[in-house]
Amino acid sequence: MSISLGKLAVRFGCELRGDPDTEVDQVGTLQSAGEGCIAFLANPSYRKMLAETQATAVILDESAVEECPTAALITPEPYLVYAHVAALLQPEPPLLPGVHASASIGADCAIPKSCEIAPGVVLGDGVVLGERVCIGALCVLGRGAVLGDDTRMMARVTLYSGVRIGQRCLLHSGSVVGADGFGIAKEPTGAWTKVPQLGGVRIGDDVEIGANTTIDRGAIGDTVIANGVKLDNQIQVGHNVAIGEHTAIAGQVGISGSARIGARCMLGGQAGVAGHITIADDVVVMGRTMVTHSIKNPGVYAGGGVPMDDVASWRKNAVRFGQLDDMARRLRRIEKAVLKPASDDES
Amino acid sequence: MSISLGKLAVRFGCELRGDPDTEVDQVGTLQSAGEGCIAFLANPSYRKMLAETQATAVILDESAVEECPTAALITPEPYLVYAHVAALLQPEPPLLPGVHASASIGADCAIPKSCEIAPGVVLGDGVVLGERVCIGALCVLGRGAVLGDDTRMMARVTLYSGVRIGQRCLLHSGSVVGADGFGIAKEPTGAWTKVPQLGGVRIGDDVEIGANTTIDRGAIGDTVIANGVKLDNQIQVGHNVAIGEHTAIAGQVGISGSARIGARCMLGGQAGVAGHITIADDVVVMGRTMVTHSIKNPGVYAGGGVPMDDVASWRKNAVRFGQLDDMARRLRRIEKAVLKPASDDES
Amino acid sequence: MSISLGKLAVRFGCELRGDPDTEVDQVGTLQSAGEGCIAFLANPSYRKMLAETQATAVILDESAVEECPTAALITPEPYLVYAHVAALLQPEPPLLPGVHASASIGADCAIPKSCEIAPGVVLGDGVVLGERVCIGALCVLGRGAVLGDDTRMMARVTLYSGVRIGQRCLLHSGSVVGADGFGIAKEPTGAWTKVPQLGGVRIGDDVEIGANTTIDRGAIGDTVIANGVKLDNQIQVGHNVAIGEHTAIAGQVGISGSARIGARCMLGGQAGVAGHITIADDVVVMGRTMVTHSIKNPGVYAGGGVPMDDVASWRKNAVRFGQLDDMARRLRRIEKAVLKPASDDES
Repeated sequence: MSISLGKLAVRFGCELRGDPDTEVDQVGTLQSAGEGCIAFLANPSYRKMLAETQATAVILDESAVEECPTAALITPEPYLVYAHVAALLQPEPPLLPGVHASASIGADCAIPKSCEIAPGVVLGDGVVLGERVCIGALCVLGRGAVLGDDTRMMARVTLYSGVRIGQRCLLHSGSVVGADGFGIAKEPTGAWTKVPQLGGVRIGDDVEIGANTTIDRGAIGDTVIANGVKLDNQIQVGHNVAIGEHTAIAGQVGISGSARIGARCMLGGQAGVAGHITIADDVVVMGRTMVTHSIKNPGVYAGGGVPMDDVASWRKNAVRFGQLDDMARRLRRIEKAVLKPASDDES
Repeated sequence: MSISLGKLAVRFGCELRGDPDTEVDQVGTLQSAGEGCIAFLANPSYRKMLAETQATAVILDESAVEECPTAALITPEPYLVYAHVAALLQPEPPLLPGVHASASIGADCAIPKSCEIAPGVVLGDGVVLGERVCIGALCVLGRGAVLGDDTRMMARVTLYSGVRIGQRCLLHSGSVVGADGFGIAKEPTGAWTKVPQLGGVRIGDDVEIGANTTIDRGAIGDTVIANGVKLDNQIQVGHNVAIGEHTAIAGQVGISGSARIGARCMLGGQAGVAGHITIADDVVVMGRTMVTHSIKNPGVYAGGGVPMDDVASWRKNAVRFGQLDDMARRLRRIEKAVLKPASDDES
Repeated sequence: MSISLGKLAVRFGCELRGDPDTEVDQVGTLQSAGEGCIAFLANPSYRKMLAETQATAVILDESAVEECPTAALITPEPYLVYAHVAALLQPEPPLLPGVHASASIGADCAIPKSCEIAPGVVLGDGVVLGERVCIGALCVLGRGAVLGDDTRMMARVTLYSGVRIGQRCLLHSGSVVGADGFGIAKEPTGAWTKVPQLGGVRIGDDVEIGANTTIDRGAIGDTVIANGVKLDNQIQVGHNVAIGEHTAIAGQVGISGSARIGARCMLGGQAGVAGHITIADDVVVMGRTMVTHSIKNPGVYAGGGVPMDDVASWRKNAVRFGQLDDMARRLRRIEKAVLKPASDDES
């Protein structure tokens, strides 16, 4: 579709610089955008590309408008406005309601006529789908799974039995929701006995789950993902974890069993969260950080890695890491020898 | 089903405090359990919930029994006894023997009548299944795969050709066993030539493999997972790895090619094991540890991360990590200047 | 098949020590090889097995030939020659051209007669396949996906719509190409709005993609994987990443959005690459390294972990890591007090 800059400005509350009747019909990057494209500038490191852009219009904030050679939609939140403009100009393809002949549907399922069930889908008994649910090719939904209105599963997703998912969620290919948590108890012989994983998974509304992400069912109670949570690819969520509203988690993060993560948190890629700990609301955890104890206050936390260096330097310093406690003791001893009066106020 | 506390006490060797005729019919947590539920207390951090529990009975050890307001099954191993009680009260759903009409079965397969083959399963030629094997929906078993009695594959598992799995194993959704290892050799041009991956995978009895875990086939010989090994989700096991009996490995661990891990080891989440090294029996590796050399003695090992801190403190300290070798040399120089007599006995 | 050592020596440019008419028909390890097997010695740590080998011949370099008790193919690149010999002796099973009756084929697909389409495959509309393409069981190819000649997809791979893959590629089971990148923009309410992911994925020729690896589609432009790239299992490649020719990446690496990695790079297992950074050609990044800023020069880089130790020592040293900046300041103060004249030339 095509829309005028004037209409976009009104719809998304932007100031417009340029002709309100100019039409745009697709989005583009500052570099790639051509005639009819609307681009955006949010990350300052791309600002140098603004002067050369061939876009018809650019969404940007006040600070960059003087350098913009084209029409401009001015807003304090250019990335957010871009997201809405892109969704308007290039909407998802429409559903194709119906159940494909190759799908295998269990007994007592509730499938509204507005749903799309793609080829090869397997639904267990008693699955309940909301209106306009889309189940992609070769998905498997276990017995009694429940999905809210407008939720979409891309191809090759597994829901184990009893998983409950809210409205307007999006699950990407290869994700697995409701597999057994890692619960094992040691026999006197040294062998492990499996602890039955009898809980479920409850996922709220507007949740996105990335490709090949896994969310385990609870051991007794449920694993709970609140409304608006966004999970990237290859995340592992252990049994009985709780994640609060609007928390966003980047790729390859691992969350151990029974951890509780607050609302509006952000966890960077490859971070790890230990089991049975609690993270407060509004906490930001930098990538790769190993969260080994509870975090009680909002703030930005880091740890888990040391800086990259050339390998020879890193090796020398890493060896010294193993001597750190010794170095600290030796430093203290010298302080005592040299700085006797000054050292009294140190611990 | 429902069972009396007296029978449970006898069956699992517990001391009983309370009426042996009291019946329980499901398990619960200390917090959630109600009438007819049996709960357990193993992790001391949940002890504060004991006084308020509404459970009908609690499995716990001697140390907590005085605080228990309900009937109690007393054992030194409450978590293990709980595992057995849960399996007894809430058993797996029974198999539904038969081959679904939508399954695609290769030539010369051996499928006992006691097996369940779910919709959409694809078996290559010459697959051999033991008694009561359950193959979940949309699994793929390559040519010549062999599974022992009572092994279960949940939905959407792949076994490549020739993979051999023992009895009573459980494979979770998205796991891939027998894909090619990462074997490449460099051409003089800088391009990589693939090294054919000609070995197989042999998995023992009573092994559990988590969701989206991958186990590569050997380059020439086999990758070998011994009896009783338990693997959590999203673990990567490289080609020609050997893992000893009853070793348990948590989520997102990566094990490089040709590593040998002993029996009864435990590896914490996100740990990494370098290639071609050997880990002795009875070794515990803490989460996130990077095992870069062989471990010859049982014990508990850690490394790979530094503690979490607020981001400003972490950044300051991380910068100093890059100066560690310099700091150590400077410290030594001062020691020589200041502590001349005392420094003779240091290296 | 079986081939003489003389023919192998001519074909792969090796010096032969032994009878040129001796035949070999399979490959083996130094330990396992028997009559008719050809083994190789590339990793010096296996050299001690050379004297005892039962192989008929061994591929090795000049330095080991004196210790070799059998016929020898002598080359400076034994691993590379082994790769070619193995591919010759034990080639891939041949294609079985045809479309299985259980496959679901969209409208307007182009499928040459030379292709193999296995059971349960689902092709969207407008999929275009080259000659001799093999699509394994239960793969899903979205609308408009394009694959070049001789590309093979193992079982259970997903390509989202519009993904383009070159010739002679190999995709392993569970891999997902073209899922949405992790693009979200914050609303003033604290909720996240999805940023539509409108770009594609372009993959060159001779690329291998490991099991359960995920490659996201671009946000606007494309994610690009150049010719000859080799990706191990469980790698996450974010949106708009570009990876240069013949770069090899080991398992569980995470590459954040818009990172650009040069040609002929090697990244070790569990490494992480931050978003929007650039890595030059011919860079080697050691396993577990956290690449947080651009790398402008070829070389070997490390960082991200600290050495493994017994847990008590590691804990003591890790605590000191949190005191490093303080230690450095105290060290400087002592230097000033003790080494006044010498300290002038230090920063």
